[in-house]
Amino acid sequence: MDQVELETILRAHRNGEIDETTAAEQIKNLSYEDIGYARVDHGRARRQGFPEVIFGEGKTSEQICGIFEKLLARSPNVLITRTNEDVYGDIRNMYTDAEWHESARVIRVFRDKMELGMGEITVVTAGTSDIPVAEEAAVTAEAMGNRVKRVWDAGVAGIHRILAERELLQNSRVVIVVAGMEGALPSVVGGLVAVSVIAVPTSIGYGASFGGVAALLGMLNSCASNVTVVNIDNGFGAGFVASLINRKQV
Amino acid sequence: MDQVELETILRAHRNGEIDETTAAEQIKNLSYEDIGYARVDHGRARRQGFPEVIFGEGKTSEQICGIFEKLLARSPNVLITRTNEDVYGDIRNMYTDAEWHESARVIRVFRDKMELGMGEITVVTAGTSDIPVAEEAAVTAEAMGNRVKRVWDAGVAGIHRILAERELLQNSRVVIVVAGMEGALPSVVGGLVAVSVIAVPTSIGYGASFGGVAALLGMLNSCASNVTVVNIDNGFGAGFVASLINRKQV
Amino acid sequence: MDQVELETILRAHRNGEIDETTAAEQIKNLSYEDIGYARVDHGRARRQGFPEVIFGEGKTSEQICGIFEKLLARSPNVLITRTNEDVYGDIRNMYTDAEWHESARVIRVFRDKMELGMGEITVVTAGTSDIPVAEEAAVTAEAMGNRVKRVWDAGVAGIHRILAERELLQNSRVVIVVAGMEGALPSVVGGLVAVSVIAVPTSIGYGASFGGVAALLGMLNSCASNVTVVNIDNGFGAGFVASLINRKQV
Amino acid sequence: MDQVELETILRAHRNGEIDETTAAEQIKNLSYEDIGYARVDHGRARRQGFPEVIFGEGKTSEQICGIFEKLLARSPNVLITRTNEDVYGDIRNMYTDAEWHESARVIRVFRDKMELGMGEITVVTAGTSDIPVAEEAAVTAEAMGNRVKRVWDAGVAGIHRILAERELLQNSRVVIVVAGMEGALPSVVGGLVAVSVIAVPTSIGYGASFGGVAALLGMLNSCASNVTVVNIDNGFGAGFVASLINRKQV
Amino acid sequence: MDQVELETILRAHRNGEIDETTAAEQIKNLSYEDIGYARVDHGRARRQGFPEVIFGEGKTSEQICGIFEKLLARSPNVLITRTNEDVYGDIRNMYTDAEWHESARVIRVFRDKMELGMGEITVVTAGTSDIPVAEEAAVTAEAMGNRVKRVWDAGVAGIHRILAERELLQNSRVVIVVAGMEGALPSVVGGLVAVSVIAVPTSIGYGASFGGVAALLGMLNSCASNVTVVNIDNGFGAGFVASLINRKQV
Amino acid sequence: MDQVELETILRAHRNGEIDETTAAEQIKNLSYEDIGYARVDHGRARRQGFPEVIFGEGKTSEQICGIFEKLLARSPNVLITRTNEDVYGDIRNMYTDAEWHESARVIRVFRDKMELGMGEITVVTAGTSDIPVAEEAAVTAEAMGNRVKRVWDAGVAGIHRILAERELLQNSRVVIVVAGMEGALPSVVGGLVAVSVIAVPTSIGYGASFGGVAALLGMLNSCASNVTVVNIDNGFGAGFVASLINRKQV
Amino acid sequence: MDQVELETILRAHRNGEIDETTAAEQIKNLSYEDIGYARVDHGRARRQGFPEVIFGEGKTSEQICGIFEKLLARSPNVLITRTNEDVYGDIRNMYTDAEWHESARVIRVFRDKMELGMGEITVVTAGTSDIPVAEEAAVTAEAMGNRVKRVWDAGVAGIHRILAERELLQNSRVVIVVAGMEGALPSVVGGLVAVSVIAVPTSIGYGASFGGVAALLGMLNSCASNVTVVNIDNGFGAGFVASLINRKQV
Amino acid sequence: MDQVELETILRAHRNGEIDETTAAEQIKNLSYEDIGYARVDHGRARRQGFPEVIFGEGKTSEQICGIFEKLLARSPNVLITRTNEDVYGDIRNMYTDAEWHESARVIRVFRDKMELGMGEITVVTAGTSDIPVAEEAAVTAEAMGNRVKRVWDAGVAGIHRILAERELLQNSRVVIVVAGMEGALPSVVGGLVAVSVIAVPTSIGYGASFGGVAALLGMLNSCASNVTVVNIDNGFGAGFVASLINRKQV
Repeated sequence: MDQVELETILRAHRNGEIDETTAAEQIKNLSYEDIGYARVDHGRARRQGFPEVIFGEGKTSEQICGIFEKLLARSPNVLITRTNEDVYGDIRNMYTDAEWHESARVIRVFRDKMELGMGEITVVTAGTSDIPVAEEAAVTAEAMGNRVKRVWDAGVAGIHRILAERELLQNSRVVIVVAGMEGALPSVVGGLVAVSVIAVPTSIGYGASFGGVAALLGMLNSCASNVTVVNIDNGFGAGFVASLINRKQV
Repeated sequence: MDQVELETILRAHRNGEIDETTAAEQIKNLSYEDIGYARVDHGRARRQGFPEVIFGEGKTSEQICGIFEKLLARSPNVLITRTNEDVYGDIRNMYTDAEWHESARVIRVFRDKMELGMGEITVVTAGTSDIPVAEEAAVTAEAMGNRVKRVWDAGVAGIHRILAERELLQNSRVVIVVAGMEGALPSVVGGLVAVSVIAVPTSIGYGASFGGVAALLGMLNSCASNVTVVNIDNGFGAGFVASLINRKQV
Repeated sequence: MDQVELETILRAHRNGEIDETTAAEQIKNLSYEDIGYARVDHGRARRQGFPEVIFGEGKTSEQICGIFEKLLARSPNVLITRTNEDVYGDIRNMYTDAEWHESARVIRVFRDKMELGMGEITVVTAGTSDIPVAEEAAVTAEAMGNRVKRVWDAGVAGIHRILAERELLQNSRVVIVVAGMEGALPSVVGGLVAVSVIAVPTSIGYGASFGGVAALLGMLNSCASNVTVVNIDNGFGAGFVASLINRKQV
Repeated sequence: MDQVELETILRAHRNGEIDETTAAEQIKNLSYEDIGYARVDHGRARRQGFPEVIFGEGKTSEQICGIFEKLLARSPNVLITRTNEDVYGDIRNMYTDAEWHESARVIRVFRDKMELGMGEITVVTAGTSDIPVAEEAAVTAEAMGNRVKRVWDAGVAGIHRILAERELLQNSRVVIVVAGMEGALPSVVGGLVAVSVIAVPTSIGYGASFGGVAALLGMLNSCASNVTVVNIDNGFGAGFVASLINRKQV
Repeated sequence: MDQVELETILRAHRNGEIDETTAAEQIKNLSYEDIGYARVDHGRARRQGFPEVIFGEGKTSEQICGIFEKLLARSPNVLITRTNEDVYGDIRNMYTDAEWHESARVIRVFRDKMELGMGEITVVTAGTSDIPVAEEAAVTAEAMGNRVKRVWDAGVAGIHRILAERELLQNSRVVIVVAGMEGALPSVVGGLVAVSVIAVPTSIGYGASFGGVAALLGMLNSCASNVTVVNIDNGFGAGFVASLINRKQV
Repeated sequence: MDQVELETILRAHRNGEIDETTAAEQIKNLSYEDIGYARVDHGRARRQGFPEVIFGEGKTSEQICGIFEKLLARSPNVLITRTNEDVYGDIRNMYTDAEWHESARVIRVFRDKMELGMGEITVVTAGTSDIPVAEEAAVTAEAMGNRVKRVWDAGVAGIHRILAERELLQNSRVVIVVAGMEGALPSVVGGLVAVSVIAVPTSIGYGASFGGVAALLGMLNSCASNVTVVNIDNGFGAGFVASLINRKQV
Repeated sequence: MDQVELETILRAHRNGEIDETTAAEQIKNLSYEDIGYARVDHGRARRQGFPEVIFGEGKTSEQICGIFEKLLARSPNVLITRTNEDVYGDIRNMYTDAEWHESARVIRVFRDKMELGMGEITVVTAGTSDIPVAEEAAVTAEAMGNRVKRVWDAGVAGIHRILAERELLQNSRVVIVVAGMEGALPSVVGGLVAVSVIAVPTSIGYGASFGGVAALLGMLNSCASNVTVVNIDNGFGAGFVASLINRKQV
Repeated sequence: MDQVELETILRAHRNGEIDETTAAEQIKNLSYEDIGYARVDHGRARRQGFPEVIFGEGKTSEQICGIFEKLLARSPNVLITRTNEDVYGDIRNMYTDAEWHESARVIRVFRDKMELGMGEITVVTAGTSDIPVAEEAAVTAEAMGNRVKRVWDAGVAGIHRILAERELLQNSRVVIVVAGMEGALPSVVGGLVAVSVIAVPTSIGYGASFGGVAALLGMLNSCASNVTVVNIDNGFGAGFVASLINRKQV
């Protein structure tokens, strides 16, 4: 955070030029930490209710560890997504309570397990190959204070498999549906429940699936009105949004 | 048909150079009628078991009537697809038994109603707006000697609607599924039946449906293995293929 | 609803074969009304908490009035989207309290104004031309029991315009952002608030905007983690999902 | 299969609440086996007349062997598609009668060779490079009880090559045509025969073939009315559908 | 042509600074006529052996007549493509020998009928709807001094129709093949002849033909090595290039 | 502009809490005028050196006249782009010095003709049909205080036409090149000059030009390093940027 | 070639049933050699004037050598394209006069050097990276009996480089232009010459060049009327067609 | 440079046939050096004010060193882009003052540091991963005589980060904005400054970012009028154009 800007705000507050609420607001919105190759946005955690997550792809283990250390100093729960087991080795040397979620490729420190959600979040996949993306969503939602239910491999070509979970679905506060190929499952689930459904297309498929585009288009054109969509393979985003929707009022 | 070629074949047959089967085969494959702007392929009817259908789009009423007359001279059942009520007026002046199928935009003379199929063909739509394409399929299949069942507006967002027709579907010899938007219905139907499912994407939808491309991709990527696909809005093609599949062995 | 199926369920219940909860569940999920060209899904209202909305495009005024009458017999609030002033004339002859929302092209009967939401829904547009889609979202959300705030023409090329509304945004329970061209506004808004942001791409733009595809891609690739996306120009869907997210727990 | 559900059905049957047909139907449609990372759909075999095939891509040899063992306990013929020679080594250690089809990359146990088809299925390729996809189709069709004829490398640039096989084609009950590049061969074959033609685009080609999209579009736009299409390189799907079409009536 | 530049060249020639060949070359390449809204390139006729053709689309009848007059003052044969009957009315008032080619939408003055070609150019269409584009090619080639043969409606779904013309095709010096839908005909023709084949995709088709893109891709990926391609519906270009290929050596 | 915000800034300044520069900056950045359906960004003129231009498409004549009046009250030069002659009639009734640029479809009041540029801007088109877009660029640049040279119809298929203007091009401070079809001209011009070239793709062309996409891609991939690109048909944007580049230092 | 078919034709000829011309024609068109995985089309050489070229990609060295041997037994000149140095090693062991063209990745036996062309073929590239594709074209054209001129690295951003070769270009009978990136060079060359120009897009470029699609579209939309296009990187095709165009009349 | 052409020009000048200005012009435009595989365009440096930069991709270290040596003989500052550390080793052996810019993958000799710009160029990135492309732009601009400011990681999801740099931005003569994902930052920056903004899309992103296409489309459709765009990842081009814009008048 910029020292000069901060002093200016504080001085204005002490002189009575701005009241306490305003001062707090200004500080909250302006704060970030410039560490050369990145401007770490500490304010985001306060503005959005969760610390900045580290997107691991394209960063060295050293960089990740450095940022991780700083974030963990301020927050009990921290995530690293799209990372690998080597990075996990380095992190575990520093924090023995770090967890490695192999399928999701996520490292998580999960110290504060207080439940913050109004209800449950259910994560559903169409096929077995969609599980890694779904796990990324589930692990994220748990770390943000939610109870999570998992339903794997319930695609529409065997429709009784998803119908068998109707009660579970209808008791959820939010449902995340992860599917590749034709991306049809969110429409079916959307028609079964009275809550918001977050659809995650995956890059699973071959031939004319075009790396998830077929599933993405299917979901955007869903005939169920309660479906919204995130980017291909973006399990983290789905888990993040589901957590915000499920959060208790304060 | 080319006179010289025909005489050559006949002479060769009479001289014993080729046997009867061969002569018949050669005549069957070579015959067409050159009428200036078109080479009417009379052989196709014999090769494929149905007279050439007139694709009405881009032809004048006069041209259509001319071709229609020639085809009807050889066959009891003739179809004109993608046409309009004006053309129907002209046709009805000539043939009072011509039918006008408004929704399907098809004109049909249907004199020979002998059943040629092994079982029933069921045509299903996801929504109300898909009916015109589905009717084109149904009207075609009927004219080619099949019993046809219709199930309209059974899209996946209200999954119990298609489940309610499970018995009907499972008793069909072929199922045609017509759907726009995300094109998910063929996958669900495909999982319910043990026969071939022909999927017809429609250009129904808006936004990122891209004139039927979203539905087309969804169908090509179907997780049900018994689904094949025809071109967007091609109800005629679906009805035609379904008839060939259903045809009794001879 | 199918009479036979209903009687079967009731009889099983009376004989003690199924308990009350199960009977209710079965009835709730199976019910729809087959009116020839459509299977009206009355169950959807109960499953999803709102009557089926009539999508006006491609239906005759007569058909719309017929369905409208049936829906209004069961529900105090009913919407017709993507319709026009002529249809409104016919509807108003029957129901004098029907409202015509010109910009949104929506007809609404809005009799039950009980508030069902936990907080407020704010709808934001990037430009003036995005207002019709935004109004469709706002009118929908109001009819579903929400207080709605509107912020028009606050695109990113004059960034102070959206910053001036920061407080309003941060007090909302859900934010809907409607934008065409490059679709950048949801990312900026997403970074300012701690709640779910629903992005609606519009087909506004020219040249390489490709009917809203540029905006759609921008929104799917948003660098803000709390953004989900609906189809191009789908204001209704955004308003529908926002209402589900904002709904009070029961 | 869920024990509770099964007992419920059986008890209802014994008490005379549901008749035998209904009980059988319910059991058939509800059964699947949840093995953690997958819900194996044993019902599909009964519904569709063939055991679930294992799609090998993205599964470990250990997983494949585990599923294979379970499937083979119930069915004499089982397929693994998109697999490799290492997996074959493991399978052969368990089942010495397993066959390795190198070109098709398929493992097959083929114990029940009873013929189930009404006629023959012919598989045609446009070029030499299309053979692996065509073999996947042929091996599948054989395992499902069909006699299969193979015609390799008969592309349209040397049109006499396919004409030389006219008699063979015209005696088939179904024809599968596998082609890359411009995908023109199905149209030519479609014009020669009176049966259904299943077109399989392959990803063979270079430059503007776009991984099979050029061939796919060519086939969807075929001027022959008896052509339907499956996904790019989906030889298995083509063989599966051809088998359903060819199956004797029961 | 710029007066100053011309004088400079001539003076240099008279002074012996440049020789006759060089002077002629420079004049030939530099000449054009600036008429405000267009720089009429009279040099092109000399460089390419034919006067500049007027592309009628987007020009007023007055502008077309103006340019036409100038061109006809220098050349016996002039074409206007993509025009209409109204413009023809105006042109015929000035030049009574102007011809109107309705199908091709071409106006032609054709005074010099000397044959300039080594052999014949054959123009083939796959369907009846492709004739307008094919006629544009044929009319162009005739005006550039070629004998032209026409073969209409010989698409691949009735392969015997094109085979019946094999002798005609094999006697041509160049073949132009015009096709929409899947664009398969050029590959078949290409395999039958030993000369260059120019493929013209047309925008004929529906569904996934995408305004001629499917045909274009098919032609670019032709498995026959002697096929080159021009833009969608560009009959003029095909006729122009065919004329250059067929031109006698000088 | 918001009254409360303004007073806050002024009071802070008068009390010595902020200095003059800061106050001015804050006022400059915060100002816009909320007129219901639009937030007119008066600050943009000051920030960017030109009043906000009215994009006419999709606005009623009444709305345009209203906004026009307000803008003209503050600025001597105002533009309306993408408009028509009817709007011009209404504007001229209010301001007799308004000009109508038919080809560019621009209305302009041009009262302050002071030259603000360091040098000349040259606008070049490849063909006659590109002139409207080019005129939009030229008229914009003139209104922003630049001398503009026009070179029409100098496409690369007659390369001597652009070479003849080499001297003019090399004396320009910025060059705008407007081209459709293959969009090749900017690369040629880019290689001839030592200044920035702004390329404007136009939607001129047919077949596989895809509404300007072919030209756009050509320009983005230009082998000349001094070329940047604006959106398809965006003449206004090109004229605007060229003016900023050419502006004298202050 | 099929023995039975051949004998049938010969017997018919000897019996006077068909004349000599017909017999020759039938033999010429029907001949191919079925070697299991390929139907080698020996007839193509006779029909098209050159032996079938071996496309090396995806074939083992053993397969290539086998086919090569058979082709060389009938023809003095044979090509293998898209191959590598290892295959060359094997070929050279058998035929010491085989040449290895490293840049073009072509193996060539070139024994008959008789010139068959009417004039010269010139091959031009826009950049250095386009040379491999251009060499494939040049080596092909030489092997088919043509004199070939090479002009490398003459792209449009330094327009004087291609203008310096104007005389060479204008003396050619055919010009092949090979270019990546924006693909502008064929239009410039097309405007300079009075002969057919064959444009070859290359996959050279980055960013939005999309593997040659930008260049391909540029060439298809060329404003020069004498340009035709082949597939991306298809140097062989361009050399083949250029040879057919240049071939002396017989 | 061609000796004969040069002598012709010189002789004409000495004889008084052309004046000094003309002679200089002709020499300047015609000069290039043909070194077999490349025509090095020495004239470009004079025409564009900077030596030809070596694009390293696809060239051997030996080739690069050869060209580098020749260019350095004429110019104090030379760049090699898209290269690697091995090439740098070879270059440094020859020129010990060569710099290696690892992030940008650029080798630079930077001997003449005279400032040629009117003001400062600021380079901004949206994220950390965009830095390599941004460094390529910055290093290029420095070598062309400009002062460059860097602002890294100021993406729109934390809008206060870019607002904190408002003063710096508003004092720049040109701004380069480098962004991947949704490419929204140029629109925000464009709205803050009164100078030209050059937008560089990067291939950073995942899912539906399509290798930079989403960012590219976002930038082309920017709602800020002062934004122009270069190709994906083309940092060099942006730095080059920014230098031309910033260059002092002469």
